[in-house]
Amino acid sequence: MTSTSASPTSSAAPRYAILVAGGSGSRMGADRPKQFLNLLGAPVLLHTLRRFMDPAVGIAQCVVVLPAEQFSTWEQLCQDHQVTIPHQVVAGGETRWASVRNGLAALKPYPAGIVAVHDGVRPLVSAAVLEQTFAAAAQHGAAVAAVAPKDSVRGLAQQGSYAMDRSRLRLVQTPQCFELNLLRRAYQLPELPTFTDDASVVEDLQPIYMVPGDYRNLKITTPEDLIVAEALLRAEQGQA
Amino acid sequence: MTSTSASPTSSAAPRYAILVAGGSGSRMGADRPKQFLNLLGAPVLLHTLRRFMDPAVGIAQCVVVLPAEQFSTWEQLCQDHQVTIPHQVVAGGETRWASVRNGLAALKPYPAGIVAVHDGVRPLVSAAVLEQTFAAAAQHGAAVAAVAPKDSVRGLAQQGSYAMDRSRLRLVQTPQCFELNLLRRAYQLPELPTFTDDASVVEDLQPIYMVPGDYRNLKITTPEDLIVAEALLRAEQGQA
Repeated sequence: MTSTSASPTSSAAPRYAILVAGGSGSRMGADRPKQFLNLLGAPVLLHTLRRFMDPAVGIAQCVVVLPAEQFSTWEQLCQDHQVTIPHQVVAGGETRWASVRNGLAALKPYPAGIVAVHDGVRPLVSAAVLEQTFAAAAQHGAAVAAVAPKDSVRGLAQQGSYAMDRSRLRLVQTPQCFELNLLRRAYQLPELPTFTDDASVVEDLQPIYMVPGDYRNLKITTPEDLIVAEALLRAEQGQA
Repeated sequence: MTSTSASPTSSAAPRYAILVAGGSGSRMGADRPKQFLNLLGAPVLLHTLRRFMDPAVGIAQCVVVLPAEQFSTWEQLCQDHQVTIPHQVVAGGETRWASVRNGLAALKPYPAGIVAVHDGVRPLVSAAVLEQTFAAAAQHGAAVAAVAPKDSVRGLAQQGSYAMDRSRLRLVQTPQCFELNLLRRAYQLPELPTFTDDASVVEDLQPIYMVPGDYRNLKITTPEDLIVAEALLRAEQGQA
């Protein structure tokens, strides 16, 4: 679980990012998709984009995957917030898998490098987690940010349930970083119903290395998540 | 996972509670144990006690388990906050298991009923979760509040890691409710290193039924948890 430094060659590999934001907002009960909800003055997705495109991260190209019908809303939001961060917008697909595949196709011009796939609605990702996950993928081919469960974990059984060893389990977040050509090979295989993230798409081709994530790196999926994200962001900004 | 109504007889069973608060505060980096940290004007443990001893829950006796060296601090806090909620304070043991066993011993006068074991540092437990867990234990003997993981889950392997089916997993919270005599029998068995909660202590004697918990019912273990709890509590109070 400890991240190790990449070799000089690999850490110099170009970096790319695919931010996946396919939500329609229905689960939030909100009037707009969760990626566009206002988080302390800026849309959730813009927070995420800013963190990835901080020059210190060194990402050469960022692809934002959105449902086609949301392009105009995002364009308007970028104008309203005077966004000058370069990024390419690509239409999502029916499933998360299809959306990432579309994002990957937009990176076709690039022969090699490391690509991060990240949930557009994880706006609190830290620079440290980004750096460690990119570096681990450069060394191991595939690396994902993950945290140990804080709670006890039980598995469902026919009758009742059974205790599991939580020290052997990890809750997987994003970023999930891969050698670009490894991710391309994985996305040439057919989609399976067991794909819940990119690690599950890649794992038959390459062991998945896990990097310590951050409990604050939450995915905004329910109304209380937005409340939590605001509180954590305020604390980060020293306004708590 | 759906909770069902208890039979009239069982739902009339007397209810007891053991609130376990053994923390020393070292993981929080705080100047006091986490159960005594200030959460919007009251100690975390007092919030928890208030929720359990709401008359609507109908608990006949509440035992608070604390390290003996914290008795005077708690007494002072109860004076400062003019606490009139009846409860019995009992000294904790070396481990969580030993602390619950001590709490259980304090319920010796009672021949039968349903007992909830709850983390003193889960102050946001809702009345609905309390009611459903007590009712399910009255019907099934043993019931715990649990939520499905929001993130993908991976298991650690010798080389890398593997995807798990998160729909078959639950993150276990408290309350964990049991028939009083079932819990007594379970705590007569020797302590095992695999005990992480009371469900794991009881499961060899009785199937553990799981009741839908609440993502807001968090356990305060790190500084960011306190920030999150404050935000959720404010939202609950309509101050968000």
